[in-house]
Amino acid sequence: RGDQALAQINVYETSLALDSSVKLHASPQVLGSQGEDTEWVNLAISNPKPTSDDWIGVFSPAKFDSGNCWPTSGGKEKTPYICSSPIKYMYCNSHPDYMKSGNVTLKFQIINQRADVSFALFSNGVQEPHLLGVSNPVAFFNPKAPVYPRLALGKNWDEMTVTWTSGYNIDEAVPFIEWSAKGLPARRSPAGTLTFNRNSMCGNPARGVGWRDPGFFHTSFLKELWPNREYIYRLGHDLVNGSTIWSKNYTFVSSPYPGQDSKQRVIIFGDMGKGERDGSNEYNDYQPGSLNTTDQVIKDLKDIDIVFHIGDLTYSNGYLSQWDQFTAQVQPIASTVPYMIASGNHERDWPDTGSFYAGTDSGGECGVPAETMFYFPAENRAKFWYKTDYGMFRFCVADSEHDWREGTEQYKFIENCLATVDRKTQPWLIFIAHRVLGYSTNDWYGKEGTFEEPMGRESLQKLWQKYKVDLAFYGHVHNYERTCPIYESQCVNNDKDHYSGTFKGTIHVVVGGAGSHLSPFSSLVPKWSLVRDYDFGFVKLTASDHSSLLFEYKKSSTGQVYDSFNISRDYRDVLACTHDSCEPTTSAG
Amino acid sequence: RGDQALAQINVYETSLALDSSVKLHASPQVLGSQGEDTEWVNLAISNPKPTSDDWIGVFSPAKFDSGNCWPTSGGKEKTPYICSSPIKYMYCNSHPDYMKSGNVTLKFQIINQRADVSFALFSNGVQEPHLLGVSNPVAFFNPKAPVYPRLALGKNWDEMTVTWTSGYNIDEAVPFIEWSAKGLPARRSPAGTLTFNRNSMCGNPARGVGWRDPGFFHTSFLKELWPNREYIYRLGHDLVNGSTIWSKNYTFVSSPYPGQDSKQRVIIFGDMGKGERDGSNEYNDYQPGSLNTTDQVIKDLKDIDIVFHIGDLTYSNGYLSQWDQFTAQVQPIASTVPYMIASGNHERDWPDTGSFYAGTDSGGECGVPAETMFYFPAENRAKFWYKTDYGMFRFCVADSEHDWREGTEQYKFIENCLATVDRKTQPWLIFIAHRVLGYSTNDWYGKEGTFEEPMGRESLQKLWQKYKVDLAFYGHVHNYERTCPIYESQCVNNDKDHYSGTFKGTIHVVVGGAGSHLSPFSSLVPKWSLVRDYDFGFVKLTASDHSSLLFEYKKSSTGQVYDSFNISRDYRDVLACTHDSCEPTTSAG
Repeated sequence: RGDQALAQINVYETSLALDSSVKLHASPQVLGSQGEDTEWVNLAISNPKPTSDDWIGVFSPAKFDSGNCWPTSGGKEKTPYICSSPIKYMYCNSHPDYMKSGNVTLKFQIINQRADVSFALFSNGVQEPHLLGVSNPVAFFNPKAPVYPRLALGKNWDEMTVTWTSGYNIDEAVPFIEWSAKGLPARRSPAGTLTFNRNSMCGNPARGVGWRDPGFFHTSFLKELWPNREYIYRLGHDLVNGSTIWSKNYTFVSSPYPGQDSKQRVIIFGDMGKGERDGSNEYNDYQPGSLNTTDQVIKDLKDIDIVFHIGDLTYSNGYLSQWDQFTAQVQPIASTVPYMIASGNHERDWPDTGSFYAGTDSGGECGVPAETMFYFPAENRAKFWYKTDYGMFRFCVADSEHDWREGTEQYKFIENCLATVDRKTQPWLIFIAHRVLGYSTNDWYGKEGTFEEPMGRESLQKLWQKYKVDLAFYGHVHNYERTCPIYESQCVNNDKDHYSGTFKGTIHVVVGGAGSHLSPFSSLVPKWSLVRDYDFGFVKLTASDHSSLLFEYKKSSTGQVYDSFNISRDYRDVLACTHDSCEPTTSAG
Repeated sequence: RGDQALAQINVYETSLALDSSVKLHASPQVLGSQGEDTEWVNLAISNPKPTSDDWIGVFSPAKFDSGNCWPTSGGKEKTPYICSSPIKYMYCNSHPDYMKSGNVTLKFQIINQRADVSFALFSNGVQEPHLLGVSNPVAFFNPKAPVYPRLALGKNWDEMTVTWTSGYNIDEAVPFIEWSAKGLPARRSPAGTLTFNRNSMCGNPARGVGWRDPGFFHTSFLKELWPNREYIYRLGHDLVNGSTIWSKNYTFVSSPYPGQDSKQRVIIFGDMGKGERDGSNEYNDYQPGSLNTTDQVIKDLKDIDIVFHIGDLTYSNGYLSQWDQFTAQVQPIASTVPYMIASGNHERDWPDTGSFYAGTDSGGECGVPAETMFYFPAENRAKFWYKTDYGMFRFCVADSEHDWREGTEQYKFIENCLATVDRKTQPWLIFIAHRVLGYSTNDWYGKEGTFEEPMGRESLQKLWQKYKVDLAFYGHVHNYERTCPIYESQCVNNDKDHYSGTFKGTIHVVVGGAGSHLSPFSSLVPKWSLVRDYDFGFVKLTASDHSSLLFEYKKSSTGQVYDSFNISRDYRDVLACTHDSCEPTTSAG
């Protein structure tokens, strides 16, 4: 249950069992003829000897024979008949008639991932698959087309960045964004292009069966934006032959001026991962809640200004094909509002690569796809901490996969981020990290007797308290939990639904239930744990003015508010002296 | 041998010996009529009593009589007949027929230095010159013309700065750059104007005989450039009378996006100084290799993207006329690719001016001409340390003329520069300083028993190792030397031509042989000194992608590669833990 679906397939153990009586036909053969980047493909299967272990592996590029296998060192693997994992798979008996006739049509949702696609029928399950037959390839009209734009705030309040994926290298096309606002002339902004290769991966499966050519990532910086204004943009590539490839149009609304008094709505969740709308990979419901969360956010999008996905983004775990599919899943959101990410264990952790946790959760990716495919305004995108402003909010996003303790570079950054916000104009100060550095009654934290990541709050609570952090959000634990306003494990305010008056302590919220399989709570419930929900959900913050903030936790299944409270705050309430947070004063006159 | 040619001339000891039988005629009288900024002038000499001590001093401004001598304090100098040094000089017997007939024509290459020029014949050598006669003045059509543009990277990757010199003050003309790229509309960018005066100099000869009006330096900041794109630019001055003075057109290619995968070629050398293509000042071959190095770089320019001249730029040593001549010499390079400089002893050192070394190497300049005539992206251009990015490279340029030891402002900067580079997109981390803060077997370092500048590596090797600096480059020592990958004076890798696998230690390179008279090696050769070359040369780095870097050392005389190696590197190789460079890890899950 706890692993990447594609990791179940033992790619190196596949063997040939081609059977001419097996027929596989995929259609339509040309996808995206109207410029779509996603399309349904029908795979007509006729297999005279159907078994319950038969399954279809979707391969892209279509040609997956051993000819293009990367020379594995040491040759310990059997000469692999195939050496690349499929990009998705589905058991044939997911169709009711398969076992009866062996003649069915399976439907696959295929996205443009810069290469053609073929469908291979295997028998004998996923541990020692026998290849029976391969379909005709299908391909997108333009496999290199610019796709899946995702917005992110830049390093200034009046700067929006747009990052997208294409198959065009910089020697064959010049990438750019054409953008304009009603009443302003259209402009072109250049894009910087990054990519990565197999050598950028730190281990397997990312360097081995999980590797897939990632294409090119282009980022444009749209500057000098007017506050709160709607802009139209489209992705462009000027080809060397003089023609231009265009994407369709997208729109976004620029950020408010920091401190501006307007309605500002923020979505925060972690650990969403991805789902398959065609039901494939269903045998490993790794992120059962993912599609619900995505669809709830899409439904509420006109009332949402910015989204924070705080770590554990795709759960690709080294199977790189999943990243394109994730960017496709979140595209309706990310192309419209800034999609701000944080680094999680599944993005970064790998032994001996400088990650604070030496686990293998990233499947060998060691942060590279996450840090390259998404923009975020960090000074050094390999050290995943950054600050960003949105109207009356200041967000300090930490990186729980690198050391945060006192004396570290990250600790200095966190203090700087908290210390440099003007709370009369930006009253709402939010701290974010993937792992729970604050408080959680998740069962494994209970068993460690820490109810947090060890050394989490010990290092940071001084800062949260000194700078009066309103709310701290964490993922990593797949459930919902909210504490009282707390300092040094003591509730400093016993209200539950409404907080006002002098700031006393930070409210800590676990919101890692956006999709990945749920984590049980510890049976013991410390007094500071006010609300717990063993379900999929996400949080919405709404600041309507400088003195009131609404917090709502919504269930992903229904979108209903399951828990909420509000904070009303005067400027003096955050200036006033409180426990371990008093500015020096002099008795001089 | 070791001093500025013009310093040989004892200006204050000159005395009148005007001789009407001496005829001197310079032609053409109007230079630069087609907009040239450099032209050959023929000086017809007829001197009935030629002697081997006769020499021609070229003066600019042409009128150099005592009328415009600056009132010398204390009057200890004899009332000087002349009080400004010539801008160049040549012994008459450099022409074979001079001693026979006294009737020869000498050829001088004259550049536009904002003033007219006259040629004076002196006898009795340079210690107590006797002035025999002065030629007619010659002058450029427009002495104030904008000349010698030099590019430098700005503080953002998409910003190129252009700095040039002119005679136009800001009250008589508005300086700007007109620039455009194919397919983009032409734009004008304003220029900031700086200058300095005699009072800015810290001592003689810069305040005395070496002083010359420097004119005005204009810097434009060309922003929001598209990556790797060719731009055309020209220098402009809008005069108050409504007309505009234009320079000719120049072109440059903008920087790649940081981390971009394209071919990137970097030239690094130190101590080039300047030469005289007309053979003048030949009696003090101070930088014999200078013109060779300049010409080799010009010859290879289409395969070069950026040049670093790491200190000891002109060896003007207080004779300010040399700075214009240096900018003219490097202009074919600097107007086309960014010319990034560092501070050396000859730019900065002067007693009691805050320089770490209290020598008089700058001739009283105390850094002012270097810091004003060239742009470099330092926060404070009097503290000559800065960081800059070029594609897959991050350069941390230090200032060996100010304290770099632990606890200093510069040390904090160096750590920040090394710590904030993302090595998956910018794998190649280069440290640069003028003096050898690392390793050199130069003879005087050998005699000091340090094989470095004292206190150099003791303070900095911790940082080089912690942040895994690939290569460190130094000038100051006029030869070439390359070490093994080294840490704490121990070779940590015994390969010589190819380095791969986990980073173990930094390779240190002395590359101060770009022109100034060569420095001998110590007879003792420590085991870490792999290659030494007692000749003039420079280094070229070529990064073709993220995992391979080619290092070549070329001889200036022939352009041939004399020493080379390459580094092949995966991302995990720079992330992996190595001696004194392991990120903290937790045993928590």
